[in-house]
Amino acid sequence: MDRREFTKLSALALAGTYLPIDAYGAANKQIGYAAVGLGTISDIFMRACANSPTAKITALVTGHPETKGVKYSEMYGVPKTSIYTYETFDRIRENADVDAIYVGLPNSMHCDYTVRGAQAGKHVLCEKPMAISSAECRKMIDACGQAKVKLMIGYRVQYEPMWNQAIGIVRSGGLGQLESFQGGFFGQQPAGAWRLSKALGGGGALLDLGIYPLNAIRHITGEEPANFTAVLATRERSGRFSEVEQSMEWTMKLPSGILASCGCSYGQRGPSSLAINGDSGYLVMESAFNYEGVRLHGEVGGKQIELASTEKHPYQFKIEAEHFADCIRNNKEAATPGEEGLKDMLAIEAIYGAAGAPIA
Amino acid sequence: MDRREFTKLSALALAGTYLPIDAYGAANKQIGYAAVGLGTISDIFMRACANSPTAKITALVTGHPETKGVKYSEMYGVPKTSIYTYETFDRIRENADVDAIYVGLPNSMHCDYTVRGAQAGKHVLCEKPMAISSAECRKMIDACGQAKVKLMIGYRVQYEPMWNQAIGIVRSGGLGQLESFQGGFFGQQPAGAWRLSKALGGGGALLDLGIYPLNAIRHITGEEPANFTAVLATRERSGRFSEVEQSMEWTMKLPSGILASCGCSYGQRGPSSLAINGDSGYLVMESAFNYEGVRLHGEVGGKQIELASTEKHPYQFKIEAEHFADCIRNNKEAATPGEEGLKDMLAIEAIYGAAGAPIA
Repeated sequence: MDRREFTKLSALALAGTYLPIDAYGAANKQIGYAAVGLGTISDIFMRACANSPTAKITALVTGHPETKGVKYSEMYGVPKTSIYTYETFDRIRENADVDAIYVGLPNSMHCDYTVRGAQAGKHVLCEKPMAISSAECRKMIDACGQAKVKLMIGYRVQYEPMWNQAIGIVRSGGLGQLESFQGGFFGQQPAGAWRLSKALGGGGALLDLGIYPLNAIRHITGEEPANFTAVLATRERSGRFSEVEQSMEWTMKLPSGILASCGCSYGQRGPSSLAINGDSGYLVMESAFNYEGVRLHGEVGGKQIELASTEKHPYQFKIEAEHFADCIRNNKEAATPGEEGLKDMLAIEAIYGAAGAPIA
Repeated sequence: MDRREFTKLSALALAGTYLPIDAYGAANKQIGYAAVGLGTISDIFMRACANSPTAKITALVTGHPETKGVKYSEMYGVPKTSIYTYETFDRIRENADVDAIYVGLPNSMHCDYTVRGAQAGKHVLCEKPMAISSAECRKMIDACGQAKVKLMIGYRVQYEPMWNQAIGIVRSGGLGQLESFQGGFFGQQPAGAWRLSKALGGGGALLDLGIYPLNAIRHITGEEPANFTAVLATRERSGRFSEVEQSMEWTMKLPSGILASCGCSYGQRGPSSLAINGDSGYLVMESAFNYEGVRLHGEVGGKQIELASTEKHPYQFKIEAEHFADCIRNNKEAATPGEEGLKDMLAIEAIYGAAGAPIA
């Protein structure tokens, strides 16, 4: 065993013993997150933690330590010594104030930083999509398992209260037997956005937006879709969509026979919605996947129903941050662990395959 | 030429000269309809005509002349001598009060009664779906052409004012370039309904309900969908769906690259809706295809829009009846002629084919 191997093994051993169950025994001990990548989504996550009793930003990882790093360190009271670059990232291992990392990087960097975070002995809350291939997802799960750290994927919709109310209606039989879903999530990505780069995004709108109805359908039914059809289109010729598709529509069939059709796009406006149809009633979530303004309407037990969330952005991120903090504190598995991200990625690969445009 | 051929030719000649343009010159001369089949849909059509200044029920065709026939003749002031059975139907030729027939029969009877109506020299307003195969549609178009009578298919949504407002927004560029559609129409057919019989319905929910989003998409874009994928499911094992499928979801791609996904079912509840997505805005019609309560919401020019129709059922049927009356009176082609029904049927055949369940 050479020095390098010894160091690695020691790190793993350390990680494995890093978290005695009572380490967070004090009820007011906040879980410390290092925000990895200080883009839009991390900005939201940090705001969400700012008024949380159980989660706190304790470190920053950025390519711009002097500007972004300093700005956010002052904003959230992070010591200057806890500002890291991507080069110094692995030294986060030595920072006892960091319990977990929040990976808010472009999709193609999720795997690398999750693995390195795990190897540094930190729990990992990684944004969706988990990665850009199922192989990467497996690598991330393995790395966290070996390091004995927890891995959670940021499926914020699974933590959203109005959604959980809807799912309660579905699971209590309010719609009868489930029959089908129709969903969609559409948006516009400006020219030059990293999401339009195949190297950074890994794929198009399916990975980033289509994953919402996909994950919701998998979550609600507890089933893994088996049969897929899909069709892609790029109408716009501006060059924005030279690397990833503009739009996609697809169908899925679940093992029980439940059907679904969904759409997504990086180059169109459209409703963010999911229709959940049963044999005796239905719910339409719209807007379904937005940061706030989640609403539902439909027919339950022969009666019209309509409900709207009044919670304010970034409440979904706050719930997420606190859920994972609770998991860390009480040594519980996250409700949306790495396996959840892997299952979505397997479906995404199958959908791209059905469209004749395999990504992996 | 034998007697039979001579009679036929005479009838055709008569039909061809039956309608000089000024035959309906008097503004208050109502167009007389014979209602063929006195089921639910004809009941609606007759109610719609009851308070129309330009359309009127002047004859009835029914298998139950003594009961249904008498009932409706008294209700709408139809002479008892103008009650026909399916056996005596062809004698409608001699009834000068009948300008047109309204075919409200099960799908598999549309072709036969349209052809016979045309051969009797009557214009034909036939319910959708036009027939149960494209071959039948062509036969109907040919028969009406040969008899020089007009043929209109009852696509009530194309005549609906709120829809026309929505289409005005789309056509004036309010959504930018069109990118995709997501639509659905779902309902429950009770056990024993003729629509669940392959022999009478000709197919399942696609023919009866899926045709609504299909037709709307074709109408809005003016394009014929070219590429289809489709998936069928029958979860229910009650026996209701032993002849036709319970549910279907499908995707289409139009020649311009516009995408669509749609669903329909005879065995589920769900929203009746169509999302119309452009690159700068979108509209959601919901409910889209119901007899009343048509609503739309969305985003046009960066602003939220919401509109609801206050018109009362059976206004859609009244507009239809009066449109065709106007066509007859002024010798115009119907906005939804037989060719429109044929094009839908070609798409429907392609969708069933894509699902691996060809119907023709």
